Amino acid sequence: MSDNKSFQDHYPEIFQHCYGCGPLNEHGLHIRSFWDGEESVAEFSPKEYHLAFPGYVYGGLIASLIDCHSIGTAAAAAYREEGRKIGSEPKFRYVTGSLQVDYKAPTPLGPKLVIRARVEEIKGRKTVLTASVSAGDTVTATARVIAVRMPDHLLP
Amino acid sequence: MSDNKSFQDHYPEIFQHCYGCGPLNEHGLHIRSFWDGEESVAEFSPKEYHLAFPGYVYGGLIASLIDCHSIGTAAAAAYREEGRKIGSEPKFRYVTGSLQVDYKAPTPLGPKLVIRARVEEIKGRKTVLTASVSAGDTVTATARVIAVRMPDHLLP
Repeated sequence: MSDNKSFQDHYPEIFQHCYGCGPLNEHGLHIRSFWDGEESVAEFSPKEYHLAFPGYVYGGLIASLIDCHSIGTAAAAAYREEGRKIGSEPKFRYVTGSLQVDYKAPTPLGPKLVIRARVEEIKGRKTVLTASVSAGDTVTATARVIAVRMPDHLLP
Repeated sequence: MSDNKSFQDHYPEIFQHCYGCGPLNEHGLHIRSFWDGEESVAEFSPKEYHLAFPGYVYGGLIASLIDCHSIGTAAAAAYREEGRKIGSEPKFRYVTGSLQVDYKAPTPLGPKLVIRARVEEIKGRKTVLTASVSAGDTVTATARVIAVRMPDHLLP
């Protein structure tokens, strides 16, 4: 991790309100993503109320963690692809085109979760990523995400 | 809708704590699903903080709505398949095997969202469903969900 700022800390202010990862959303999850070599990594400690049933994490939270972490990784990778510093102008922002999550094992509620993503392919405005969620040594979910660079007409 | 009880109201008490749809989770989303002919339907009004960026709903919430609604539908369909009253013993409970969400259009933050699901196939313990999320007349996401009947060893 090259600095203390997450990918999301480099988002334009107007995008820092995302429920999943916006530093400025006071109700949100505050997912924070960083490079770790060729992969990106985020850590998250679910709250006790993020359960599916007693002892296990809610699957919608798993999907949410993968979503924001992967989308942030797509943006970070776009800067890297251009040899630019993350957050430099013009800024990139991606949205989710598709999200495929395969739940491999129940995710225990308690341990810190580790979310990893890797860019598989950048094709113009689309970035394909694979991702995983782990609890300890167990990979509990794997995913494939297609991130799409946000069209300018959607920018507020 | 044949009664005022949602699918989730018929879950065993121990499963009513789900963050997405548990009636007893005070922090949760309280997704409530009902039959509407051959389809199931749920309605949900996102909070103002459930945003991805100003004016649009957070994609992780969309995935969460689809997840709980589809899993509840799989359980309801299992009773229907056996000609039994929903919630009768032995009770069914499903978990998510896989969740594929395709985001078709940005989901505006404001209007009530309508989530629909349909059982495509029941194969033993697996139920395949398709689902959608609409805002007004616009389908903003479609999905394919594989629900798996919960193995007994996971039951608390």
